[in-house]
Formats: sequence, C-alpha cells, structure tokens
Amino acid sequence: MEKKKVILDCDPGHDDAFAIMLVAQHLDVLGITTIGGNCSLENVTRNAIHVLEAIGKADAIGVYPGHSCPMVAPLVTAPNFHGETGLDGPIFPEATHVASTMHGVDFIVDTVMNTDDVTLIATGPLTNIAAAINREPQVAERVKEICIMGGSVTFGNWTPAAEFNIYVDPEAASRVFNSGAHIKMTGINVTRQCCIGLEHVEQFRKIGTHAAVLAAELTDFFIEQDIKAGEPPIACMHDACAAAWIIEPSLIVSAPMHIDVELHGSLTRGMTVCDYRHLRGVDPKVEIERQAQMSLRGSAANADGALELDFKRFMDLLYSTLAAYN
Amino acid sequence: MEKKKVILDCDPGHDDAFAIMLVAQHLDVLGITTIGGNCSLENVTRNAIHVLEAIGKADAIGVYPGHSCPMVAPLVTAPNFHGETGLDGPIFPEATHVASTMHGVDFIVDTVMNTDDVTLIATGPLTNIAAAINREPQVAERVKEICIMGGSVTFGNWTPAAEFNIYVDPEAASRVFNSGAHIKMTGINVTRQCCIGLEHVEQFRKIGTHAAVLAAELTDFFIEQDIKAGEPPIACMHDACAAAWIIEPSLIVSAPMHIDVELHGSLTRGMTVCDYRHLRGVDPKVEIERQAQMSLRGSAANADGALELDFKRFMDLLYSTLAAYN
Amino acid sequence: MEKKKVILDCDPGHDDAFAIMLVAQHLDVLGITTIGGNCSLENVTRNAIHVLEAIGKADAIGVYPGHSCPMVAPLVTAPNFHGETGLDGPIFPEATHVASTMHGVDFIVDTVMNTDDVTLIATGPLTNIAAAINREPQVAERVKEICIMGGSVTFGNWTPAAEFNIYVDPEAASRVFNSGAHIKMTGINVTRQCCIGLEHVEQFRKIGTHAAVLAAELTDFFIEQDIKAGEPPIACMHDACAAAWIIEPSLIVSAPMHIDVELHGSLTRGMTVCDYRHLRGVDPKVEIERQAQMSLRGSAANADGALELDFKRFMDLLYSTLAAYN
Amino acid sequence: MEKKKVILDCDPGHDDAFAIMLVAQHLDVLGITTIGGNCSLENVTRNAIHVLEAIGKADAIGVYPGHSCPMVAPLVTAPNFHGETGLDGPIFPEATHVASTMHGVDFIVDTVMNTDDVTLIATGPLTNIAAAINREPQVAERVKEICIMGGSVTFGNWTPAAEFNIYVDPEAASRVFNSGAHIKMTGINVTRQCCIGLEHVEQFRKIGTHAAVLAAELTDFFIEQDIKAGEPPIACMHDACAAAWIIEPSLIVSAPMHIDVELHGSLTRGMTVCDYRHLRGVDPKVEIERQAQMSLRGSAANADGALELDFKRFMDLLYSTLAAYN
Repeated sequence: MEKKKVILDCDPGHDDAFAIMLVAQHLDVLGITTIGGNCSLENVTRNAIHVLEAIGKADAIGVYPGHSCPMVAPLVTAPNFHGETGLDGPIFPEATHVASTMHGVDFIVDTVMNTDDVTLIATGPLTNIAAAINREPQVAERVKEICIMGGSVTFGNWTPAAEFNIYVDPEAASRVFNSGAHIKMTGINVTRQCCIGLEHVEQFRKIGTHAAVLAAELTDFFIEQDIKAGEPPIACMHDACAAAWIIEPSLIVSAPMHIDVELHGSLTRGMTVCDYRHLRGVDPKVEIERQAQMSLRGSAANADGALELDFKRFMDLLYSTLAAYN
Repeated sequence: MEKKKVILDCDPGHDDAFAIMLVAQHLDVLGITTIGGNCSLENVTRNAIHVLEAIGKADAIGVYPGHSCPMVAPLVTAPNFHGETGLDGPIFPEATHVASTMHGVDFIVDTVMNTDDVTLIATGPLTNIAAAINREPQVAERVKEICIMGGSVTFGNWTPAAEFNIYVDPEAASRVFNSGAHIKMTGINVTRQCCIGLEHVEQFRKIGTHAAVLAAELTDFFIEQDIKAGEPPIACMHDACAAAWIIEPSLIVSAPMHIDVELHGSLTRGMTVCDYRHLRGVDPKVEIERQAQMSLRGSAANADGALELDFKRFMDLLYSTLAAYN
Repeated sequence: MEKKKVILDCDPGHDDAFAIMLVAQHLDVLGITTIGGNCSLENVTRNAIHVLEAIGKADAIGVYPGHSCPMVAPLVTAPNFHGETGLDGPIFPEATHVASTMHGVDFIVDTVMNTDDVTLIATGPLTNIAAAINREPQVAERVKEICIMGGSVTFGNWTPAAEFNIYVDPEAASRVFNSGAHIKMTGINVTRQCCIGLEHVEQFRKIGTHAAVLAAELTDFFIEQDIKAGEPPIACMHDACAAAWIIEPSLIVSAPMHIDVELHGSLTRGMTVCDYRHLRGVDPKVEIERQAQMSLRGSAANADGALELDFKRFMDLLYSTLAAYN
Repeated sequence: MEKKKVILDCDPGHDDAFAIMLVAQHLDVLGITTIGGNCSLENVTRNAIHVLEAIGKADAIGVYPGHSCPMVAPLVTAPNFHGETGLDGPIFPEATHVASTMHGVDFIVDTVMNTDDVTLIATGPLTNIAAAINREPQVAERVKEICIMGGSVTFGNWTPAAEFNIYVDPEAASRVFNSGAHIKMTGINVTRQCCIGLEHVEQFRKIGTHAAVLAAELTDFFIEQDIKAGEPPIACMHDACAAAWIIEPSLIVSAPMHIDVELHGSLTRGMTVCDYRHLRGVDPKVEIERQAQMSLRGSAANADGALELDFKRFMDLLYSTLAAYN
C-alpha cells in the first residue's frame, strides 16, 4: 500500500519527537515545518533536525522554519516543560544538517498546491497552517485533511476551558477550523489517555534500537520532572496521538461534530467549542456510525473529534515503530 | 429529624411540578417564589398554586411572585415545551388560593435574614436570587446553600456550551456564583440521567394517589410532545434532581470545583465554566473525598458540581413520595 | 408654573451636593435615593442628609437608601476624590434627621407607579434605576424621562472609552438605556465644560448665604486636592449639569441619538456607544432641530445626548440658586 | 531633496487612485502592493495597473498582489461604492502591464529588510502589513513609519464606533498597532474634512492633463452615486489624505496618543480606541507640541492621530500634482 503523504507542522518538544519517529517510519513525510511561539523558532527547528538525525531520516526529510510568534495574540510565556533546549534529556551530537531556506508557510502552500491528497499533521499552535490558508485560500480545499493535536472535546488544561496549543494562538485556530478544510481534532480529552510510565520506558530499553533509547531518554526526562513536581510519574504523548491517528485510524474512536474556537470570552478564550449535543445519552463507541449519518442538530460537522484511544494498540504501534529503526 | 428549611424558587413547568411534590413532602418549605422570563410570571405563579392545591399543600405553603424578566439580557423567546399554560396536560380546577402580595425577592431577603440555615433551591433562571443578593448582600452569607438546577459540568443544551436556565439570565447567574454563597450545581450533565419513560408512568398510575395521577398526566403530556417531534418517549425531570439532592444527598455524586459563568463569549455566553482539572484521570465516585481535601489547582472551589445520579434510588424516592400524599 | 416632579438618585459627593442644592430650590423633589458602590452606602446616605439639613430642606425631602454594590460587576476600588467621608471640606453638625426605612428602589417603584410625569435624575451608577425597572418594568414606561450624569458622547475619563459612573455598573446602565424609557445623557463631554475656579468661589462667598458658603467650602476642598496633585485649580460640577438640564433645558444643546452600553469589549467595557453619524459635518448648535426630525441612519434614537453647555448661564442659575437659600 | 521611500499598500478604489497619483509624483515609490477583502484581489490589482498606466508610471512602479481575504474575520460583504470594477467611471484601455509574480507580503518583507527608512502607506485593510510583520517581526522595527488611512479618533462610519478599513480586518489592525512600529493614523475624523465637490472637478478639467481628466472622471462617478442616493454631491478623498501627510506633513495637525483596536466588543469591534485624555480641554492646534513632550496619562503613545487637515493647502497640492503629469 502506498504511504499517505503528510507534512508535519510541529514545535519539538518531547512528544513531538515521538510524533516524528512515528510519521517518519509509516508515512510519506514530504517535509517538517516548525512553529515557534511556545519555545523559540530556533530551538524547535534545531530539535527537529536532531531527532531526524538520531533516527537516520535527516537526509530524507527537510525541515522548513515557519512563524516565530502568534498571529494576533500576545506571546504566552509558559514555563517550559521541555527544559532549556526544548528537548532536554538526550545529549545530541552537533547537527550536521541545516534547515531549509524556504519559509515553512511557503513550503506548505507550494506542496499542497502541487501535490494531491496531502494530509497536514499539526502538533503545535496553528499559526503556520492559518498563514498558509491566508496566503492561498485554496490550500483549505486541496488538503486531504488537517489532523490537529490541540483543543478538547471536554475540558482544558491551560485554563479550565482551553488547551494550550489553541490558547496560544486562538485566532489562527479559528481561521483553520472555519477554513472549510476537514479537521481531525486530537484533543487532550483523548491524549490524556496516552500516558507512558516507567514500565514502558523499561520496554523501550529492551527494544534497544537508537530510536528506542532516544524514546527512553526523552521519557526519563519528563518523568523526572514529574517526580520533582510531586506529580504522578507519567508522560502523556499528546502529539504522538495525532500522528498515530493518521497511521492507524482504528486506534481512535471519534465522532463527527461542529467545532469552533471561542475568541472573545473572558473565561473561555481559546476553547474549542464542540457541538456534540447529538451524542447525548449515546455510548460513543457503539453509536458513532449511526450519528455520522444523522443530520446533526446544530451546525454541520466540520471535524471529527477524538473521543477514545486504544492505548494498548497505540503502544504496540510505538514498540514496533521503535524496533523497526535500527 | 428536623426537616431542612428551604425556599423553592421556580418557574413551573412540568419538572418544577415534580420538584414541588418532592420538597413539599420532605422539607420544611418556607415559601415558593416564582420567576418569569421563560414563561410569563402570571402563568408560573398560577401553576405553582395549581400544583400546591392538587397535593393539598396550598394552605401550608405561600407563593410569592418575583421578577418577570432577566436582569440585563434581552428576553429569550423559546418554544414552550410546557404548552400554552406552561403546565399543559392535567386539567386543574380553578384555583381557590391567590399569590401573596409580598414580592418574591423581599420574601427571600426577609426570610433568610430572619431565619438561620435556609437552603435556596432554584430551578429556573437565577434572577430572583441575584436580586435578593443585590438588595441585601448578607443573604449570600446567611443562606446555608443554594442548590441550582442549571448549567452543566460538561456540555450544554440550549447552545453547545450553555444550558437554558443559565443562558436566559447569565448576569444573574454570574452574580450568584460569585456571591460567596456555597452553590450546589445540578447541571444537565446529571439531569439528563433522570429520564422518566412509559414504564414509570404506568407505575405512577398503579400508585394511584392524587399526586401520582398528577405525575402521570404531566409525564404523559411531555412524552406525547416527544412522540409528535420524533424524539425518544422520555421526560427528563431536571428540576426534581435539585430537590432530590437536598432531600437525600447520597443520591448524587458530586465534586468540589470552581464554577463561574461566561458573560462575554460569542460562542459560550451563559456557559458554566467548571474547573475540574484536578479530577482528570480520576474516577469521580471513588476519589471525591480525597479531592475535597486537596487544594485545588485553579481557583478555590465555590461549588459542588453534580456528576452522577443514582437514578434507581431517585425513582424509589419519587414513588414513595407520590404514595405518601393523601 | 408648577414645578417638575423629580426623584434624585445620587451618591454625594461634592458635585452631587450642588445637584441637591439646585433641585431642592427649583423642582418638586419627591425624594432622594442613594446609591453606594463608589463610596459606601452609609456615607452617601449620611452626606445627602447633611446637605439637606445645611440648606434647610431635610424636613421636606426624605432620603431613601438604595443598593450598596453594582448588579453584576465587581466593585471598582477607586481613589476617593471626595475625601474620607465622601464629602470632605465643610464641617457638618451631627445630623438630626435619619434616612427612611423604605428601600430606595421601592421608593422609586412606588412613586413612579402612583405619580404621573416623574423625572428621574441619576448622578451616580445606575444600579438603583435598573433595579427599579427590573422589579417593575412599567417604571420605564411611566417615568417622564431619566436624566443621567454619566457616559460620554466623545471620550471617557476612567478609561480612554468609558466614564466612571457607567464603568462602575455597565450592566445596570445597559438595562436602563435599553428599557424603552427616554434618556437624557449628560456625559462628561459636556460636564467637562462646567468647571468652577477660584473666581467663582470668591463670588460664592460674596453671596454669603448658608448654601453659598457650603458651596464655597465644597469647592475649596476640591481645588486644594487639585493643587496637591499638580492639576489645574478647577472643580467640574458634573452632577450639577444633569440637574440644571431639567431645571432649564435651554442651558444644554443636545441631539437625539441612539446610545447603548458596551458590556463585552476588552478596551471599551462601560463605553456609551453613541450613534451620531447623522450629525457628521454638522454644526450641532445650528442643526439640532432639523436632525431631530430626520430619520436617523442607525438605530432609532433612544436618548438626547448633551453636546454643549452654556456655562455662563449655568453659573447665573447657580448664583441665583445659592442666593435664594437664606 | 531626496524623495522619501515608500511602499503603498492599497485596494483601488477611487480615493486610492488619488493616493497613487500623489505618491507617484512626490515620493520614491518602491512598489505598490494590493489587498483584497473589500473588492476582489484581481480587481484591485488590475485597477492599480490601470491608474499607473494612465499616469505614465507603470514602467517605473511594480504592482505586487497580496492577500485576498482578512486574517481571521469573515468577509464583510459591503455594497461596493466603487462600482462593478471597483474603479468605475473612467474607461481604461486594456492593460499592457501585468502584476508581479512576487507576493505582495514577500515584497514588503524583502524591501523593508534590505532598504533603510521605508515608509509604508496603507489605505486598505491592514492584512498585508500584519502578514509581513508576522512573517518577519523585524519589519516593525525597520520601517520608518506606517501611515494608515483607517480608524477614527472620534466616531466611526461603518458602525457607530468603527471605520470600515479597520472593521474589515480588526485582528490585522490590532497586530499592526501593537507591533512596536510607529503609526500615523489618518482616521475618518480627518478624512471627512477632505471632500471634493463639483467646483473642484471643474478645476480638474481646466488643468486638463491626462491625470487631471482621470481625476475628474473618478470624482464624477462618485458624485453621481451620491446624487442617485440623495446624498450631498461630494467625494471624500480618504486615502489621499494619508498620502498627503507623508508628502507634506504640515498639512495635518496631529497629536501623539496611544491607539489600540477593540477586537471583542459587541458594539465596538473594530474601533480604534484612542487615549487622548491628556488633550482634554486643550486646543489641539496650539498645544500639540507641548503634549508631545509630556508624559501621557495612559499608556505610552504608539501613534500620531490626525486631528485636522488644511484642506485648502491639500487642494493646492492636488492641483499642482495633477498639473505636473502631462
């Protein structure tokens, strides 16, 4: 079977690194674009190159730096859960590859306009995707779909209502959700179900490939941070879920729904407002298909909202992926 | 055991009628205040008197008309699910009692300021409660608690994010949630679990008391409306849940959380924004007590948000209540 | 000529004191209601009684305490330009009169419902007026008009866009402007034109009545505050302008316009949004009458917005008023 | 004297055409970028080329098409005051020049990053300028200033509070005003003072150059539209004012002030909120210089807001400009 063509737009980040390892093995990655805003653009771009070099994919996959700040919103200065480099833990050798001189947004526009059936996987704030759509509105029609890690079908993390990636650039997110493109939203309601613990790290070390050791070191760093902070020793692989959904759609149970982004609330800015009133009283696992065929009560569905992750099968995919790198 | 002292603020309404039947049997009802806005103040006041007369409590419990429209928001003209009278179905004899000439808000203020440990149960928009607190801010300190039917810990009904009672008068709700009073929020996330079907109506008729027949007739009307509209033949007893929670606290599993009301969002106006990030990954039934003692991550809890209803035991309470009249 | 019947709703305050002196001489003052929020309700009520006693009107005019805080908005803690008592400067003898036990809002409702052609003059936040309209919506139809000191046709003072009285309780203001009552808005664009300086104080002392000496002492305090703060030595008699407009309408040039209150802006909350696009390029003094007869471009006019004050004639009115008290 | 280097970002449009004629004569125009949103990008780009060809400047000045829609806001479908082509009136010969293949935003970024002291004159929605700043934040530091036709120091035109260019893309405007670049805001409060009537058209025809005849034909179309609509027969040359301010700064009296854009209001979205409380009671013409040296009361000034236009001298500039084209 031909591999799906994707561009990964990301801001690595430990869980972005897992997303890179997944997509580079299973999909036809046309390029990686980077987005600053949380961490600096320089850092995330360098981190993407480090991960690609570590897994032997830096010759095959180009890295294209995109925007360095949100469209309209002031920069959110968040504590960096990822350490000083944005990818603390492993010691990477100095990079031998460099980023492309082509702007990430131009890479997205050119690729999508000249290649059919490209899927965008976006695991950071949606600034680059929105800028690409603004620069060339046909991008929204021509992409196959946009699979986002961000938002939530239920509640938030950064605020009671908002998830971090959307909160950082709500205007960009609003542009993307209202663009007409089909969205897959891998919200934190689902990615919270994707938490790696010490027993999984042990397994990574048993697998023993370069990629698996990298995975272990990345997770170790996260779990150490948890322990210092008095939190449970787990690392949620948010971004990897969005990648996994494209690689193996059956890992995620989702439902079609209308999703929009609140820009104006004083308590809810950056919330992904999901209309799933049509699902009330319904067991999501059983009734999804029926619902998909129903006319929805509210606005027409523009998105599939992820509801459940098959964590065991996700881990199987991750183990086999790490083992396949040598 | 001494009965708890309550004032019921309501806008009957079929499910308000069930709330009246529950509180009049089990609690020391100091008075019923009525609130217009959805239906006319005249209708809801007359309906309250009809129900009290039907269950033989009209001499014991006075009815005090309150406000007829929201504090600030324009009137929402909603289709009246309750029929022309606001309580269609049963044929009531002409009322022989009249409403008090005392304003509902004054009744709340005077009662709370002169009686200790009064619980307010509010099953309509919160206009009267907010007006009472504005007229005498000490009301918020002196009430034991305010048990509300309204809002949602998860998603809405009137809009994707907002439940009807809060949506109708968000400013009043904001005033109440921010008043310092302790709130019990019986949101539609829980009241959706309280749906009466034809099998229950059959049981009402078997019980056969005046109150039980009234319950059957009220439910019949609702279910007929459903059938006409192609909906499932069930009647959710939203307001009765708030009453039941005060009568028998163990019927509801709840968690302490901070709840505020969004006034400014373009998609989320009237949403009860619940901060329950401290509950993530936690089985609410098991961990409630521990959480209640934890310091919460966000703002301090000002409310208990209802999460689960024990529907079977709720029905047992309802059956025994209906049987106990006359 | 019969005197106009008015209720003065105020929060004295130095310029409120001037308003009291004006209305008590020229109008049929049915009562004074007081509103807290800026200063405490206790202080403003006591100050109203002090002023009435000082001018010999405390037997004739009752004082009715109203609300002590805004409807929905959190209390704004503003520096008190009026000193510790809210009316620093003059030394008042201990009051021999007491406030009425009737609530100010009840006084407004009862008076307006039982008396024709009552004008409300409101020189503080609009909380009491909104509460009266909410308690009895017919108040809005029955009042002759509501003359407000607050808002601005141009720019604000408390924020770039908002004037203080409206900013303190925007929801109440919104309720009043949208009530259907006819509004006269004496905004700070006009009251900034009403500034008393040392030369006027000198004249007050020449007039020499009790009232004139009180006026001098009140103004002295304000001007001393200015001098300490390095501001020009003038005292703007904001509230007195609203009173003067009712006493002698020709003192103010106004134009009909639609005015609403912004509740939701992040920079503009509490702004009175005035639609006077129909006046563009028009000399307001010349063209008012023509405009009043034109159909307006935007929403229908609900208010007269004050544009210009005849300050010289205002001072003549003030001087003759102070001289008439003995 | 060396001519000032400018890029004109516009959406011609009749008054944009006057701006083009002014800048092409007096300034070193590095390029013209076009912005759709109101009219289609195709139309405004073609219109820019038509005007340049008509005045003999199409070889000297390149046209670079930019964005076709607002950053986030839905398209505003406004009645087109400029006719079907966006520049109805004159009959232009078929264009012999074509637009550049370089994107307008890239042209702005590349030019500003490689040329010192470039002034941006923007006479349409600010989408391109914001996109350039987002793509390369150093653009904001490197431009000399950004002179905008848009917004208002007083009241709006499209809504009571908002002017059209800002209303169309408020998020872009917010990005630009908050970018750190120095802004000159030529708001409609001033451009309303720049209205050409039939007597000026007569003078254009007397001047008789190609450019002057074009000016006459453009104005005729506008005035005909007015007459059909029952409006006064005048054409306000909004965009030309922004160009004139850069050509001859003394034509405009302005004051330093802080200006921000309201994104969230329900009545005020798209309003330029100008803090000029420091100017109250001050004759702007006399006191500007003193104010510029004062510390402002509110936020630090980020802009010069235009207050007064010397219309007679503006017309002298326009006449001499039209005469100079042959």
